[in-house]
Amino acid sequence: MKMIHIILYFLALLSYTSHATTSSVNDFCVANLLLPNTPSGYPCKPPLLVTENDFVFSKLVPGIPIPPFNAGTTPATVTDLPGLNGLGISVERVDIGINGTVPMHIHPDATELLIMVEGQMTAGFITPTKLIVKTLNPGDVMVFPIGLMHFQLNSGVGKTYAFAAYSSTNPTLHIVDILLFGNKLPTPTLEKTTLLDSAQIKKLKAQFGGSG
Amino acid sequence: MKMIHIILYFLALLSYTSHATTSSVNDFCVANLLLPNTPSGYPCKPPLLVTENDFVFSKLVPGIPIPPFNAGTTPATVTDLPGLNGLGISVERVDIGINGTVPMHIHPDATELLIMVEGQMTAGFITPTKLIVKTLNPGDVMVFPIGLMHFQLNSGVGKTYAFAAYSSTNPTLHIVDILLFGNKLPTPTLEKTTLLDSAQIKKLKAQFGGSG
Amino acid sequence: MKMIHIILYFLALLSYTSHATTSSVNDFCVANLLLPNTPSGYPCKPPLLVTENDFVFSKLVPGIPIPPFNAGTTPATVTDLPGLNGLGISVERVDIGINGTVPMHIHPDATELLIMVEGQMTAGFITPTKLIVKTLNPGDVMVFPIGLMHFQLNSGVGKTYAFAAYSSTNPTLHIVDILLFGNKLPTPTLEKTTLLDSAQIKKLKAQFGGSG
Amino acid sequence: MKMIHIILYFLALLSYTSHATTSSVNDFCVANLLLPNTPSGYPCKPPLLVTENDFVFSKLVPGIPIPPFNAGTTPATVTDLPGLNGLGISVERVDIGINGTVPMHIHPDATELLIMVEGQMTAGFITPTKLIVKTLNPGDVMVFPIGLMHFQLNSGVGKTYAFAAYSSTNPTLHIVDILLFGNKLPTPTLEKTTLLDSAQIKKLKAQFGGSG
Amino acid sequence: MKMIHIILYFLALLSYTSHATTSSVNDFCVANLLLPNTPSGYPCKPPLLVTENDFVFSKLVPGIPIPPFNAGTTPATVTDLPGLNGLGISVERVDIGINGTVPMHIHPDATELLIMVEGQMTAGFITPTKLIVKTLNPGDVMVFPIGLMHFQLNSGVGKTYAFAAYSSTNPTLHIVDILLFGNKLPTPTLEKTTLLDSAQIKKLKAQFGGSG
Amino acid sequence: MKMIHIILYFLALLSYTSHATTSSVNDFCVANLLLPNTPSGYPCKPPLLVTENDFVFSKLVPGIPIPPFNAGTTPATVTDLPGLNGLGISVERVDIGINGTVPMHIHPDATELLIMVEGQMTAGFITPTKLIVKTLNPGDVMVFPIGLMHFQLNSGVGKTYAFAAYSSTNPTLHIVDILLFGNKLPTPTLEKTTLLDSAQIKKLKAQFGGSG
Repeated sequence: MKMIHIILYFLALLSYTSHATTSSVNDFCVANLLLPNTPSGYPCKPPLLVTENDFVFSKLVPGIPIPPFNAGTTPATVTDLPGLNGLGISVERVDIGINGTVPMHIHPDATELLIMVEGQMTAGFITPTKLIVKTLNPGDVMVFPIGLMHFQLNSGVGKTYAFAAYSSTNPTLHIVDILLFGNKLPTPTLEKTTLLDSAQIKKLKAQFGGSG
Repeated sequence: MKMIHIILYFLALLSYTSHATTSSVNDFCVANLLLPNTPSGYPCKPPLLVTENDFVFSKLVPGIPIPPFNAGTTPATVTDLPGLNGLGISVERVDIGINGTVPMHIHPDATELLIMVEGQMTAGFITPTKLIVKTLNPGDVMVFPIGLMHFQLNSGVGKTYAFAAYSSTNPTLHIVDILLFGNKLPTPTLEKTTLLDSAQIKKLKAQFGGSG
Repeated sequence: MKMIHIILYFLALLSYTSHATTSSVNDFCVANLLLPNTPSGYPCKPPLLVTENDFVFSKLVPGIPIPPFNAGTTPATVTDLPGLNGLGISVERVDIGINGTVPMHIHPDATELLIMVEGQMTAGFITPTKLIVKTLNPGDVMVFPIGLMHFQLNSGVGKTYAFAAYSSTNPTLHIVDILLFGNKLPTPTLEKTTLLDSAQIKKLKAQFGGSG
Repeated sequence: MKMIHIILYFLALLSYTSHATTSSVNDFCVANLLLPNTPSGYPCKPPLLVTENDFVFSKLVPGIPIPPFNAGTTPATVTDLPGLNGLGISVERVDIGINGTVPMHIHPDATELLIMVEGQMTAGFITPTKLIVKTLNPGDVMVFPIGLMHFQLNSGVGKTYAFAAYSSTNPTLHIVDILLFGNKLPTPTLEKTTLLDSAQIKKLKAQFGGSG
Repeated sequence: MKMIHIILYFLALLSYTSHATTSSVNDFCVANLLLPNTPSGYPCKPPLLVTENDFVFSKLVPGIPIPPFNAGTTPATVTDLPGLNGLGISVERVDIGINGTVPMHIHPDATELLIMVEGQMTAGFITPTKLIVKTLNPGDVMVFPIGLMHFQLNSGVGKTYAFAAYSSTNPTLHIVDILLFGNKLPTPTLEKTTLLDSAQIKKLKAQFGGSG
Repeated sequence: MKMIHIILYFLALLSYTSHATTSSVNDFCVANLLLPNTPSGYPCKPPLLVTENDFVFSKLVPGIPIPPFNAGTTPATVTDLPGLNGLGISVERVDIGINGTVPMHIHPDATELLIMVEGQMTAGFITPTKLIVKTLNPGDVMVFPIGLMHFQLNSGVGKTYAFAAYSSTNPTLHIVDILLFGNKLPTPTLEKTTLLDSAQIKKLKAQFGGSG
């Protein structure tokens, strides 16, 4: 190839890539976690500062099961994996010890897709008119539609674990017991709005750090 | 105006409106409730069958408060008001009798905007890290973000009512008690996933029609 | 409960809530009105600075009817109620005095849902192929699909008011007269683009502050 | 290549394409115009019936300018080009004769991007607080944000034309005169809601086919 | 509890659940795969026909690695798991044999989140200005943003497998070789548009079933 | 008109426009290109600094065709035309010299709508199961659905040009050759993931600036 061609090719490259270069931020928008979040996600890191580590999370280790539920989770969401920003997906590893449970909870902004890897879980979700419960084994995948109350419990003889993929870059975990019993909402208000007995409420407030 | 002009104007009208005519379905898409719903809403009624009644609902009457909660709601959602289809909004009237309550509940797919009209309510929502509770009077508006657990109770001396606008054409009402105690989810499963006592569960199952 | 259990429960709480804590901004994104808006809404306020006042607006008082239209509105949009940020809903109170009117207008980015409370209105919207007009009384709800030209007028014997819920956190009000006659668009341009007579245009420019 | 390899490659092809085959409808969703529209667009044609003609429209010819505005448009929207379905874009050709105008209008569901090709236009859009007007020549591109009232007029000495790209597969054209004067909305209602004089209204109703 | 109370509670249940009942389709919209797809997903199955099997897929078995790439995938998308409909997420299992590879490919409508389970992969994606390549081991998660060209290859000593979660209910797999060499696009056209040599093109057409 | 009326009208104007004034940022959100982008677009410029130049781009001139492809493009995207921000549309002019080509490429985040103006192109897109190719002349419009691999080549006797409208404010251009041969991805990795011969890869790396 002659020198003149090399130069022309070089110009061609510049021409074809320059548009992409100035807008490369649009091929991805890696979260700049130092800036405030927005409803669509974090502002983008300058493309020059983006590295492969923004797209890989290396610690999706077993969640340490902790009492009283004997279950633990390890999340890989946008704050752990900034390359997820704006892309509407994330994952966590869910480990449940023997006899353990992921208690009744809700993800207000995400559908959950549970991918069984080891052991056995019984899982379910509830709507006012449907109760969906299944026993799950490795090779099973179960979907928990966005915003629905659900649970998983270890129904096997050993430990069990699964991956939970979410349709959100930063799903939150709303455990019903923590919502009801982990704050200062007065016991009489809880009695009226849940019909639970006062003694029951106080017992669980003691467990979950609530007062009032 | 001469006849030739009238004809030309007529042609002009046809020209300018014909595009809109064939696509008028796009100015709105009134729900054809006889066809199956889709994730984006119901298929559209043929424009020729659309009338003003598709855009007006005339029975947003007081909800009849019913025990045990002494509260009632009257919805105006897409199944009542087919003109809402695809437009992401709806409303209901919420009436709470003396000492009544709209118990702990969740709208999995809608933010609620409560517009106080009469009486006094105390309302709140809960996240794992925040408890937001306010006493509301006429002229107050309170927002309950999508998917969060919340409640309203009559904290005044008389009846109270409000309008609840929703960011969904067909929000559903997930009362925690009905989710937990209104179906066949076995009591031992509930014990494990909520830490409620067995006696408490059985008592509320009796009230809410649950078994198991 | 023994001390060791208390500690374990405490750890459990930390474990179950820590994920939610770091991402609590996702349960809501209260507008930080001091920062520039984005196409998806304002950046989020730091969760620690969020209070219950971000979710409640307390001045949805009657709009003061003002000439020449003898109607007034009081909005509760994201700039008044920062908890609405990113949630796609807002409300305003619409008051129309005797013989008054909310003149022909458009909300470019919001569907309006009008909830009648007192008095009588006649309201309508227009597409190139449909005219929808209804007389509305308390208990009536009418939907005005996004972007369509519409009006409300007091057709009763006394004052009338309604709440207008919008499918936008910050809807704007485009009154046709203000668009056409409230700026410097030259009269000849207006004549050509509206076919209105020059005298008519000048008369309304005088009323609405236009020039040119 | 030996026969065994050919067979293995064949199997490989099947394996790698079968997933895509069964879901090929997702690479595109060509409108089946015989079925009712939905809020997200038309149902998809069976992939086997899709041809290249679904993705090409061949008659984006000059719009025939028609009185009284001496302008004409030729659209290529989803009903003309079914391959656009669900993709959020379309185009039309806009031709304006000498001294002609595309009168004041609104696209309720689309941003317009005007690409000048020949002649000269003066174009503008209006918000309650901004008037944006520019004279446009070939090589100019102007954006008219969704839902805003705007116009184009031929300000040159010869014919002019442009392409208007829209952020909607089926934008509608709401000409203010046709909305106000092309239907049965009673003249007194128009007087009250526009402050236009009765004589002016009647004159334009005669032109645009309105009555009442 | 007295009979009268039972009846009242029964009424209360009806009252509180009836709204949810008629709109229960909105808590989820299980795909009716017999009806044509739409841009937002399949029409919903009648709620009464929905069972737990609509939410669980039980065959996420190892993909059978097939020549020439010695890799195989097992998808769980909406056509396999109809409960995913409209929820924007799906998963597949990816198995790569020794020395195998998932060749250069694109998912036009989905971000991929790769969750490593066994063995070692080297994976990467490419934009005009960035090349991101990483060696992945169990516990690693890597994100491949929507629409970007990427690959995975087995860089370990044994078999390797991972789960790939997608931000789409029905992602398609566009292998570059199949796009370029698996159809009738004429060789001269390929030469001009890829600069590949004619001999190279013909060799790969023979492998991938292309002609022309 | 008496002075008192003038004052009242002035107040009326203030009243009706004040809501719009404070929220005028919502009628449009012109990109502030000095601030970091977000997944939904750039933060908005203060309305007071917005001018008509934010909505008009005046240099959509012919793209200079450059070797080896003898084609050139001139974009008008959000970085050129900040008024496009958040509106989901943009355009570029595509010029192809005699015998030239826009080589195989992908727009990961945009549908392309090609509007032929002069000359003749042959264009096509490819899915695993469909090859769509058409010869296009002035008056033809062709749609290339989002994320699909496609090409255009000059199949006429003279120069050819078209406008390409995109369903994105900032589409990127991923030329397959630049993705494969314009970076440091090692030749052995390319061989394995594309099945291209080593010599072919090295030849094209020399042309496109790749190494490894």
